[in-house]
Amino acid sequence: MLSAGAAVLRTVVVGVRTVQKASFAQEFFKADTAVNRTAGRKKPIPPRFTKKSKLKLSEYLKNMATPEIEAQLAPLRIAVKEYGDLVRELKANGAPKIDIDKAVVELKARKKKLEETEVALAPKEASFDRLKLEDLLKRRFFYDQSFSIYGGVTGLYDFGPMGCALKANMIQEWRKHFILEEGMLEVDCTSLTPEPVLKASGHVDRFADWMVKDLKTGECFRADHLIKNAAEKIMSDKKADEATKHALQDVLARLEGFDDKDMHEVITKFNFKSPSTGNDLTPPIAFNLMFPTQIGPTGDFKAYLRPETAQGIFVNFKRLLEFNQGKLPFAAAQIGLGFRNEISPRQGLIRVREFTMCEIEHFVDPSDKSFAKFKKVHSYPMLLFSACNQMDGQPAQTMTIGEAVEKGIVANETLGYYMARTHKYLVKVGVDPRRLRFRQHLGNEMAHYAQDCWDAEILTSYGWIECVGNADRSCYDLTQHSKTTNVKLVAEKKLPEPKTVNVVEAVPNMALLGKEFKKDAKRVQVALSQLSEGEVEALEKQLSAAGSYKLKVDADEFALTPAMITVKRATKTVHVEEITPSVIEPSFGIGRVMYAVLEHSFRQREGDEQRTFLALRPLVAPIKCSVLPISANERLNPIIEAVREELARYDLSYRVDDSAGSIGRRYARTDEIGIPFGVTVDFESEKLPWTVTLRHAESMEQIRLDLTELGSVVSALVTEKMEWTEAQQKYPKFETKNE
Amino acid sequence: MLSAGAAVLRTVVVGVRTVQKASFAQEFFKADTAVNRTAGRKKPIPPRFTKKSKLKLSEYLKNMATPEIEAQLAPLRIAVKEYGDLVRELKANGAPKIDIDKAVVELKARKKKLEETEVALAPKEASFDRLKLEDLLKRRFFYDQSFSIYGGVTGLYDFGPMGCALKANMIQEWRKHFILEEGMLEVDCTSLTPEPVLKASGHVDRFADWMVKDLKTGECFRADHLIKNAAEKIMSDKKADEATKHALQDVLARLEGFDDKDMHEVITKFNFKSPSTGNDLTPPIAFNLMFPTQIGPTGDFKAYLRPETAQGIFVNFKRLLEFNQGKLPFAAAQIGLGFRNEISPRQGLIRVREFTMCEIEHFVDPSDKSFAKFKKVHSYPMLLFSACNQMDGQPAQTMTIGEAVEKGIVANETLGYYMARTHKYLVKVGVDPRRLRFRQHLGNEMAHYAQDCWDAEILTSYGWIECVGNADRSCYDLTQHSKTTNVKLVAEKKLPEPKTVNVVEAVPNMALLGKEFKKDAKRVQVALSQLSEGEVEALEKQLSAAGSYKLKVDADEFALTPAMITVKRATKTVHVEEITPSVIEPSFGIGRVMYAVLEHSFRQREGDEQRTFLALRPLVAPIKCSVLPISANERLNPIIEAVREELARYDLSYRVDDSAGSIGRRYARTDEIGIPFGVTVDFESEKLPWTVTLRHAESMEQIRLDLTELGSVVSALVTEKMEWTEAQQKYPKFETKNE
Repeated sequence: MLSAGAAVLRTVVVGVRTVQKASFAQEFFKADTAVNRTAGRKKPIPPRFTKKSKLKLSEYLKNMATPEIEAQLAPLRIAVKEYGDLVRELKANGAPKIDIDKAVVELKARKKKLEETEVALAPKEASFDRLKLEDLLKRRFFYDQSFSIYGGVTGLYDFGPMGCALKANMIQEWRKHFILEEGMLEVDCTSLTPEPVLKASGHVDRFADWMVKDLKTGECFRADHLIKNAAEKIMSDKKADEATKHALQDVLARLEGFDDKDMHEVITKFNFKSPSTGNDLTPPIAFNLMFPTQIGPTGDFKAYLRPETAQGIFVNFKRLLEFNQGKLPFAAAQIGLGFRNEISPRQGLIRVREFTMCEIEHFVDPSDKSFAKFKKVHSYPMLLFSACNQMDGQPAQTMTIGEAVEKGIVANETLGYYMARTHKYLVKVGVDPRRLRFRQHLGNEMAHYAQDCWDAEILTSYGWIECVGNADRSCYDLTQHSKTTNVKLVAEKKLPEPKTVNVVEAVPNMALLGKEFKKDAKRVQVALSQLSEGEVEALEKQLSAAGSYKLKVDADEFALTPAMITVKRATKTVHVEEITPSVIEPSFGIGRVMYAVLEHSFRQREGDEQRTFLALRPLVAPIKCSVLPISANERLNPIIEAVREELARYDLSYRVDDSAGSIGRRYARTDEIGIPFGVTVDFESEKLPWTVTLRHAESMEQIRLDLTELGSVVSALVTEKMEWTEAQQKYPKFETKNE
Repeated sequence: MLSAGAAVLRTVVVGVRTVQKASFAQEFFKADTAVNRTAGRKKPIPPRFTKKSKLKLSEYLKNMATPEIEAQLAPLRIAVKEYGDLVRELKANGAPKIDIDKAVVELKARKKKLEETEVALAPKEASFDRLKLEDLLKRRFFYDQSFSIYGGVTGLYDFGPMGCALKANMIQEWRKHFILEEGMLEVDCTSLTPEPVLKASGHVDRFADWMVKDLKTGECFRADHLIKNAAEKIMSDKKADEATKHALQDVLARLEGFDDKDMHEVITKFNFKSPSTGNDLTPPIAFNLMFPTQIGPTGDFKAYLRPETAQGIFVNFKRLLEFNQGKLPFAAAQIGLGFRNEISPRQGLIRVREFTMCEIEHFVDPSDKSFAKFKKVHSYPMLLFSACNQMDGQPAQTMTIGEAVEKGIVANETLGYYMARTHKYLVKVGVDPRRLRFRQHLGNEMAHYAQDCWDAEILTSYGWIECVGNADRSCYDLTQHSKTTNVKLVAEKKLPEPKTVNVVEAVPNMALLGKEFKKDAKRVQVALSQLSEGEVEALEKQLSAAGSYKLKVDADEFALTPAMITVKRATKTVHVEEITPSVIEPSFGIGRVMYAVLEHSFRQREGDEQRTFLALRPLVAPIKCSVLPISANERLNPIIEAVREELARYDLSYRVDDSAGSIGRRYARTDEIGIPFGVTVDFESEKLPWTVTLRHAESMEQIRLDLTELGSVVSALVTEKMEWTEAQQKYPKFETKNE
């Protein structure tokens, strides 16, 4: 996209995404260096994970970086680096594009060999089964396709009670972690956005993908995907001739930089057809990914559904700065919907047409991006996959964010601070830190105005998924809106000491202007007020020399006479200068993070693989505690009632399951929806003082404790002030034969 | 709208709304009986409150129902009742429409006289000043028009930090009060909705207003508003002739029942023109109020932005019922955006194009709408404005919800329960209970399928605003979606005892059907499976008699032969019957409730009317506590730090204002944004043990207490476990000369 920053879920602008049918393991070790040259922005689409493939994640993670494996990979890494260096050198020397492209092809081939070796060295057993997870999520209505009784709509999902609660808890935690803890200014802007706003931001012209249509059926395909799939099919065909294969290899190497003409040429030359029907295809056309609509009844007020929440913050910049009493830096945040009309969305929650985003825009003096609280995160360790690492064939490396900023790997403290806070949030809500890395955009992946950009990528069965973008967007957006509206979007910065400046102004005679230019007089006035000192002097000179001056306003010209203008000169003392703030933007796709959390929480009971469950972090679990009477005997009712009261006193959400099933079956049912703790009331409970058993869902271990202690213990466990192992030390173990 | 239930914010379906430039007081006492016959649904648009008008609400409220006033109003009430009775009688006897209309005109005249007398008897002083409130809300960025640097868009608003926090707190409380306390199933569905869904719900065909356009400029007007305003202008013109005035009076009395032809006739006859330009107007055209868009790239997948969240719940009914283990009753709830493309929205947050709704759909056995927890609200008193009261010229009356249900005024316990819970919620978040009534829809205001409908109306300077609809929607929506999709949307109900039934089925030979009808074979199969027992027997008879049978499927006919069909007979024992649940729907427009809360919380300091502030309930206040050091002297810093820690320990949001202004000015600033409590650290604080003063914003009274007690006291005050007067009794008063 234009704006490299708000990268989450963002689609490439008339760009290219790589969909590979690589195995999970391939992707796991892959250093993704694909670059989008057209848009200055790259969008890694992780490979589709074939439904049957499975893998044992823990094994991969364990074997990831053993010295033995590294020793075997070392020469391959060197081979990648050799061509990484060559590419850099060619670019630095401004070598012809064709030479750079050739070097990139070789670089990619070497990277591929490295990746394949990595895969070969990794163990092959697998146990993660996405089908089972999807079954659970659907069956217990975490989420499911929207309008399915009407046949369903791809890319739209409805969240059921459990998904909704999980999402709400994740958002609530986000609000606490960022907005409240950092004192951000939260706003809530409309999804409906007038066209001129998105024209200024660049979305109307460039937020698009190239698309081809089946000439007969009208079926639509993303042009780059179609070419890639068709080329790969031929290249894997043993009967295809070598010259064609070679030519196609060249196409694939260049595909990311292709425009519509290049793609059309390839489609024509290799006679590519619609994969569904074999029919001919139209030339590529740009398909804008925003949903269009109109506001009001006339039909001529064009609008779109916003593709990101960020623009709502930018257009409110003046109000927010004022709310902050004119002071920089400050951060504004928004939690809300974004909409993108994907051509053919796949991959469940990863690529959807309507989604919740959480975005922060941190406004800061461009000349000072230090961050007061940076010292608090200085020693926070993170897995960083820098642009250098990617070019050098090196894996991501762990270092503290303090070190990364000091070494200049991460551009500044503010960006570093948000990266560390993002990492902390993700881990807090349940992302496995071993499957979380921050990948830096390569120089030519970023929009031209962006200074640095790091995506939080989470490893799932779809590969490394970009879930949060952390970008330094510089002053691009504010400048664009300011240009379009003629409204100054600046902050005042106190000068070290006051200075005296000369002021030269062209003051118009509005009566004359009005008479001469009628309704355009206002435009002329605005244009005059925006002239620089030098321009006013040029105008003055020409007015006195030629007796007139042609003032250009947009496409129009206005002839000014000396009577219309008085040039005034003065000196004034200024204490402040006006600056357009830079923007650091962390941008979260909550649906993607949520999906990653579900994958990372998914478990199968050892020895009973059919029994699947979710080990959600108590903080975000939809329900904190289950309450199960061992029998329907009414004698237990007063105890159940007391348990309810005890849990309610501590504001703990709970669910009583007094249905008929065996206790084991009921446990399994509560485990499936991620309830982390379970209370059982049995006949032992009746002895005074009343006791209950408390079960830890993940380990299935149980303890027995007094009912009066239940609330405080569960509350401590849920808020993670107490570990389960501590509770186990404090209370007697309870053994059951029911599971 | 079609669905009388989800009434909040809902626009009349090709119907008519009444905009009166009545005074606030007029409206305050007005029994609104306007009826929309076209759509079976009525939408009271409260009168515009002229910006200059002011009133002293407390006075009105005090004088509302004194015996003296009631004595003077009594004969007028009787006069209204006389015609109310006549209208009922005419309707009951099926009298001609013209006679009913005439009686309604007289009824309205009498109601007007009653209202005018009520106004005359009410005191005239005024103190509520909406301009001042709007100034505060804009200046402190509670909310403001969206995209104003681009010229702004009517009907769209952005919420700033304070508005956003207030809204988030209100929603959070709604979630607690309804979803958590009642164990509802929350869902989160998409705004994008395919056309067939909204076709089934009736919105595509009937969710519209009549509109006329300026023939030259294309400017659009709501036809009914235009007629009303033009007629009223003529009627208030002393020079206009009496015959015209009389004719227009007749028009106004009938306007609500007018269709496009009637309106066109009136516009032509009285020569009404565009109020902006005096140009001619087009005939009225229906303008659908949904925002249209398309999903996907082909352009032929039509969709809309949902006008209500309810449909998302209905299409998920099966999943939700299953989640609830097949049991009725259960309630589902959704918090999300709704969109309505109003023709020309006015009135700030009251009428907007994009808004947050909170909707509940309670699914219940139609033959048993009792509610287990009803006894908990039985004695809850409410101000009810029944249909009877409205027809009889009587004011709303206070009674317990228990009594209302027992007397049959409110249709059933479930509806009554939600009305009471709605009342409780509204008061909890800050609606003044004296300005809150529940108004019943008149028989012909409701959609044909609705059984009973009560709107929670809140009195604001815009008049009585409908903020929550509480409706019994019967089984309309589920039936519609079921019909369209052929998916059964039913629940199973256990029969008192099993029964044996005969089953007669027409079983098709699919091979033959496929050969004969090709792709229509499936439709024929579905149609056969839906035949009743009698229809199957008729088919069997005719097949054997005539050798063929013409089966109608929608508009098509299929000729069946005996070879295609086998009629199977069996008996089976059934234990359950299938029922389509009724739906009780409380539907909240959160923006409207929020605006009412802001009006009801708005105060001016006595003796200093320029000093305005918001006395928000602590529960929803954006920030709970301010912290103000009396001076910038660094000696106070350790105490400030200790205050911060003390408040954070109790999870209390606070704002430190250590800016330069006087303490009085800083208080005023925190009062404006509705911070209910303020802590001041002064030089007295330094004496050991450290103390601070605590200020109650609404009364400006202060107490002094030990810093170690601060957190628990503020926490108790904020959660309303302690009253301010209690705190005053417990701690010494602190007097200051600073305010």
